[in-house]
Amino acid sequence: MQLYQRWRPLLLVLRLPGLQAYKLRTLHEASMPTPPHWLVERLGLFEKLWAVQVTRLASTARKEARTIKVSLPGGQKVDAVAWNTTPYQLARQMSSTLADTALAAEVNGESYDLERPLETDSDLRFLTFDSPEGKSVLWHSSAHILGAAAEQFLGAVLCRGPSTDRGFYHDFFLGKERCGTLVDLCRGPHLRHAGQIGGLKLLATSSVWRSPGSLEPLQRVLGISFPTPELLRAWEAQREEAESRDHRRIGKEQELFFFHELSPGSCFFLPRGTRVYNALVAFIRAEYARRGFSEVKTPTVFSVKLWKQSGHWGHYRENIFALQPKGSDPARHPTETLALKPMNCPAHCLMFAHRPRSWRELPVRLADFGALHRAEASGGLGGLTRLWRFQQDDAHIFCAPEQLQAEIRGCLDFLCSVYAVLGFSFSLSLSTRPSSFLGEPRLWDHAEQVLQQALEESGEPWALKPGDGAFYGPKIDVHLQDALGRPHQCGTIQLDFQLPMRFNLQYKGQAGALERPVLIHRAVLGSVERLLAVLTESCGGKWPLWLSPFQVAVIPVGTEQEEYAREIQQSLQAAGLASDLDTDPGLTLSRKVRRAQLTHYNFQFVVGQKEQSKRTVNIRTRDNRRLGEWDLTAAVQRLLELQNARVSNAEEVF
Amino acid sequence: MQLYQRWRPLLLVLRLPGLQAYKLRTLHEASMPTPPHWLVERLGLFEKLWAVQVTRLASTARKEARTIKVSLPGGQKVDAVAWNTTPYQLARQMSSTLADTALAAEVNGESYDLERPLETDSDLRFLTFDSPEGKSVLWHSSAHILGAAAEQFLGAVLCRGPSTDRGFYHDFFLGKERCGTLVDLCRGPHLRHAGQIGGLKLLATSSVWRSPGSLEPLQRVLGISFPTPELLRAWEAQREEAESRDHRRIGKEQELFFFHELSPGSCFFLPRGTRVYNALVAFIRAEYARRGFSEVKTPTVFSVKLWKQSGHWGHYRENIFALQPKGSDPARHPTETLALKPMNCPAHCLMFAHRPRSWRELPVRLADFGALHRAEASGGLGGLTRLWRFQQDDAHIFCAPEQLQAEIRGCLDFLCSVYAVLGFSFSLSLSTRPSSFLGEPRLWDHAEQVLQQALEESGEPWALKPGDGAFYGPKIDVHLQDALGRPHQCGTIQLDFQLPMRFNLQYKGQAGALERPVLIHRAVLGSVERLLAVLTESCGGKWPLWLSPFQVAVIPVGTEQEEYAREIQQSLQAAGLASDLDTDPGLTLSRKVRRAQLTHYNFQFVVGQKEQSKRTVNIRTRDNRRLGEWDLTAAVQRLLELQNARVSNAEEVF
Repeated sequence: MQLYQRWRPLLLVLRLPGLQAYKLRTLHEASMPTPPHWLVERLGLFEKLWAVQVTRLASTARKEARTIKVSLPGGQKVDAVAWNTTPYQLARQMSSTLADTALAAEVNGESYDLERPLETDSDLRFLTFDSPEGKSVLWHSSAHILGAAAEQFLGAVLCRGPSTDRGFYHDFFLGKERCGTLVDLCRGPHLRHAGQIGGLKLLATSSVWRSPGSLEPLQRVLGISFPTPELLRAWEAQREEAESRDHRRIGKEQELFFFHELSPGSCFFLPRGTRVYNALVAFIRAEYARRGFSEVKTPTVFSVKLWKQSGHWGHYRENIFALQPKGSDPARHPTETLALKPMNCPAHCLMFAHRPRSWRELPVRLADFGALHRAEASGGLGGLTRLWRFQQDDAHIFCAPEQLQAEIRGCLDFLCSVYAVLGFSFSLSLSTRPSSFLGEPRLWDHAEQVLQQALEESGEPWALKPGDGAFYGPKIDVHLQDALGRPHQCGTIQLDFQLPMRFNLQYKGQAGALERPVLIHRAVLGSVERLLAVLTESCGGKWPLWLSPFQVAVIPVGTEQEEYAREIQQSLQAAGLASDLDTDPGLTLSRKVRRAQLTHYNFQFVVGQKEQSKRTVNIRTRDNRRLGEWDLTAAVQRLLELQNARVSNAEEVF
Repeated sequence: MQLYQRWRPLLLVLRLPGLQAYKLRTLHEASMPTPPHWLVERLGLFEKLWAVQVTRLASTARKEARTIKVSLPGGQKVDAVAWNTTPYQLARQMSSTLADTALAAEVNGESYDLERPLETDSDLRFLTFDSPEGKSVLWHSSAHILGAAAEQFLGAVLCRGPSTDRGFYHDFFLGKERCGTLVDLCRGPHLRHAGQIGGLKLLATSSVWRSPGSLEPLQRVLGISFPTPELLRAWEAQREEAESRDHRRIGKEQELFFFHELSPGSCFFLPRGTRVYNALVAFIRAEYARRGFSEVKTPTVFSVKLWKQSGHWGHYRENIFALQPKGSDPARHPTETLALKPMNCPAHCLMFAHRPRSWRELPVRLADFGALHRAEASGGLGGLTRLWRFQQDDAHIFCAPEQLQAEIRGCLDFLCSVYAVLGFSFSLSLSTRPSSFLGEPRLWDHAEQVLQQALEESGEPWALKPGDGAFYGPKIDVHLQDALGRPHQCGTIQLDFQLPMRFNLQYKGQAGALERPVLIHRAVLGSVERLLAVLTESCGGKWPLWLSPFQVAVIPVGTEQEEYAREIQQSLQAAGLASDLDTDPGLTLSRKVRRAQLTHYNFQFVVGQKEQSKRTVNIRTRDNRRLGEWDLTAAVQRLLELQNARVSNAEEVF
C-alpha cells in the first residue's frame, strides 16, 4: 500500500444525491475497507513499474550527472545537477513559503511535477494557486482523489476527470458493467502529495452522455478545491453572496421571468422582465439613432440553401434547428428544408445584395434584434446564460476597406459608452490570425493593424491573443466584470473577409469598378438575455431607475386617499413609469413604506390628506431618504428626466 | 345548337399566359369551329332532358294552376298563378328597369332563376348586382361562360368554377388526360341570358393542386364581370388607382421591404419599413401603458404537447410548422417534437397558470408582439397581406365573468381610438353561437348580451351575424375601410370559454373558492404586416409624419452649407427623426426641393448662407407650403411634438 501512503490525511465528505452518503475519513486509516482483488492487482503492477522507473532514474542520474544552468523567476540564475535537482529543491532554496505554495513547475515551457528532476539547462517557473495553470494542477489532482474515492467506495468505473476553469469534475460509470481494472496513464503534472489540498468540496452531480447514441448515461460529479481551508471558506462566502444574487432566484422573486418544460431552452418574460428587456433594447435603439445604425427586421426561418451558402451548414449544422419538410401537400409546404436562423449575418448579406450598391451609401450599418435559435446541449442550459432562444443587439457593418479604422473606433466607442451606463468595468483582447486563416495576408495585416491601433487609441487595457482569431478574420472580444468581479464574455467586434465573398457582395467604387466590402460583425450587449442575467446579479435586484420594473410604489395614508392614489398610479403608468399601488388595509403606513423599500421600489409616493388637497406627493427613496413634498406633475416630470438620462443613482440626484 | 343560341353575343378576350391567345367573338357566330363529337353528344342529351322537363312543367302547370299570393319588396302584395307566373314577369310588371337589372330572385329564402315559375305563396326579393347575392349570380354565370369557351377552344377539362367575393374563377385540366364529357349538374341560379353580362375580364392564371398528393396541377383562370361595360370601366379605373397604390409597388419604390426566395412567406423589412413597423408597435405600446395592458415575451418554439392541450394540434395541425426531431444526440435535442407557435394564446395561458392567482389581480391583460408562423398555402402568399411569418398586436385578457362588460367596452374604445388615429373608418359585426357551440348556454347568453350592449354603447354601426361565432365563444369582428373604400378584416374581440378549461385556469375568488376566468382574445391592428400593407395603400406612400420614413430632407443651397446641413441631419437623426441629406451637386436647388416633395418627404429644410449664420432652417412642406425661417432647435422640438401627438396633418398644423 505504498502508493496510498503517499497521500497524507484528507477530510472529505462525498454526497452523491440518490446514492448512499459516505463519510471518508482518511484514506490510510484502518477503517478503510480492504481493497478488492482487481485493485490490489493493479496496485501491485504499479508498484513494480514504479520500482523499475526509480532504478532507471537513479542509473541515468549517475551516468548523466553534470552541472546545468537554471534561470529562476526574477532573473536569478543558479547551478543544478542534471537528472538530480528537482524544482522542489530549488523552491526550498528560494523560500519555505514558495516550497509550501508551489503546486507544480513549468520547465522550458513544459509542465513538471515538483519532484521530477531537471534534465538540462532550464527556464524555471513555479506554478501556484494564483495562476490559472496552478489552479488547474490542484484541481486535476483533486479529480484523482475524487476518482480514487469513488472507485474504492462506490465501485465506480472511472472515465474522464479533468480540471475546468471553475474546479474539476469526474465522470463515472455506476452501472453493473465492468471495464476491467483501470490503470490511469495520466500525463500530469500532479501535486507532491494530497496534503497540498487544504479544502475540497463536491458541488453537484448530473447525468451526461459519453457519446451520441450511447445507451446509458454516466454520472458526473463536480467539485472545487483550494490549497487552504481559509480559501475554501472565502469561496463559500462569495458563492453564498452570488447565490443570493443568482438571477434565477431574483427572477423568480421579482417575477421577471420563468421557464416551462413545454418550451425547453426558451424563457418566458413576465411583464416586469419584459419591461427591463425593452428598456435595454430602447437604450441600444437610441444609440443606433445617434450612431447612424439602421434597424431592420429579417425572417426567422430560411431555406438551408442559405446556410449552405454562408458555410454554417458545414461548420455549425449540429446547432441548427431544421423544420420537418411536409411532402404531403406541395401547395402548402416547400419541398426544400427550412431552418431557424442561429445568426443574422447571412440575412443581412441578402439585404445588402438585394439591389446594386454604391460607395456613396457606405458604410451600411444594419442592426437586428431578431430571435435566434441555437441547439446547445440541453445539459448546458441554465437560466438566462445559456438558452436555445435568445436575441442579440446584433449589427453588421458593410464598409470600404479604407473606412475600417473609423468604424472600429466607432464600435469601441459604442461599447465603452454603453458599458459605462451599465456600470460594468471591462477588458479587451485582440485575437489575431490562426494558422488556418483564409484570405489575403495583406488584408489580414492591415486589419490587425487597424484593430490594434483602435485599441490603443481607446485608452482601455487590452491583451493580445495571437492566433486566436477566427479563420475568416481577426476580432476584439470584450470581457466585462460584474459587481462581484466575475468575468462575462459579452460584446464582440469581429472582421469577416469570407462572407462578403460567399455572398458575392459588391459596391460600385468611386472609380466606377465593382469592389468588395469588408464585413464587421459586432454586438455590445451580446445576448440580451445573458446580459439581463449579468445585470440582475450585478445589481442584486436593486435596479437603476431607468431599468427598474419597480419605479414607484404609491401608498395612501388612509382609505380616503385611495382614489387619489389610484389616480396617481394611473398617470405614472400612462407616462410609461412602472408603478404599483399599495392599498393593503392590513398594514400600517410605516410597514407599507418598509415593504416597498425591501421590494426595492426606487421611490415611494406617500399621499395623505394634505397631499390630496394640494395634489402633491411625499417622496421617499428605497434607501429611506426623505425628499419631501413635491407637486405631482413636477415629480413625474423629474422621474421621466432621470429615466431618459439613464442615471445610475436617480435616488441620490432626484 | 339551341342551347348556344340562348346566349346572346358577348365579347371576351381570353389571354392565358403560356397558352395560345384566342379572340372569341360571339359564341354563336359561324366562325366558331364545329363542336367535337363528345360535345354534340352531350348537348343532344341535354336537349332531350330539357324537352322532357319542359313538357313535365307544362303538365304540372295545367294540373296545379291556382291563385297564389306573392309579397313583393316594399310590402306590395300581388296575385299570381302557381307553376306559371315567373319572377321575371313580376319584375316587368313592377318596372322595366328592374326587369333589366334583376339577375335572379330569392323566393321564400331559396334562390330562383328569374324564369323559374313560382310554386306556392311566396315572399319574393329580386337580386341585383348591388347585393353580394346578385354579384354572386352574375359571377357564377360568368364562370360558366369561361368554362364553355375553355372547353370548346382549348380542349380543357372543366373542374370547379365558383364565384368568389371579388369575381370568379374556373379550374381546368389542360393535360392529355380526358375525364370524359362532362355534363355539369349545376344547382344555379343562373342568369336569363349571357347578355346580362355587359363586361367580362379575365385577370390572371395560376397553377393549383386539386388535392394533396395529386401529381399534376390544374390551371386556374380568374376573372370578373359586370352588368354593364361602364361598370367594368369604372372598376378598371379604380383598379389602376389601387395598383398605383399597391403596397408591393410602393414597398419597392420607397425601399420599405422586399421578399427573397430563400425565406418563402417571410418579409425582409429594410430600414425604412422597420421604422414604420416600429412606429406602429410604439403606438400600440403607448396605448398599452395607458390602458393597463402588460407586455410579455414568450418563446417561439413549443412542444407539440402544448398544441395538443390547446386543441390546435387537432384542428389546426396542417398550418403548424414542426421541427425535425434529432434523435441522434439526446443531449442536444429533445426526443419530443417541437413546433413554431401559430398563436400566442396557449403561452399566455401557461403564464397565467404559472403561479396561483387571486381575484385581486384580475383582469390580467397580457400583450405580446411575438413572431407567429402559419403554413398558409403558398399559392395564397402575396405581399404583406398573407405571410407565413407575421406579428400581431395580440393580447389576452383573463377576467372574472362580472368584469366582462367593462373589458369589452375597453376593447372597443381601444379599437375606435386607434383606428381614428390611423384614419380608417370601420364597421363592426357580432357573431353569435353556432349550432355546434361548446359550453353552458347561460354563459353564452350572458356573453352575447354583454357584447351586444357594448356594441350599442359604442355608438358605431354594427351588424348581427347569427350563428357565425366560433364553437368556443362569440366574437366581434372589425372590418375597416381604407382610403379607396376597400374592406379589410383586421381587429377582433373574441371570447373563449374553452381554453381556460383546457388549461385548468383558476383564481381564488373573493369568497375564497377557486373560480374559472373568462378569456378574451383581442387584436386591434391584427397582423402588423397586413395593417402596414393597408396603411401603405391607404396613404399611397404619403405617410403621416409620425409613421413617415421620409420626415425631413435637408437641402443645402450651396456646397459651403454642406457641413451645416450635415450637422442638422445628424441632430435630427439623433432626436429619432428620419432625415436625409441631399448634397447632389448635379441639381439646382428648386429641383432638389421638387425631388424631395415627389419622394413625399413631409418637410424640406433648406439652408443657405443666412440660415447657416443664424443657425436656422427654411422650411417647406411636401405640398409646397412655405413655412419660412425657423430656429433649428425650435423646429426639431415642433417636429417631435407633432410626431408624439401622432397628428395626421403635421404639414398643415406645423
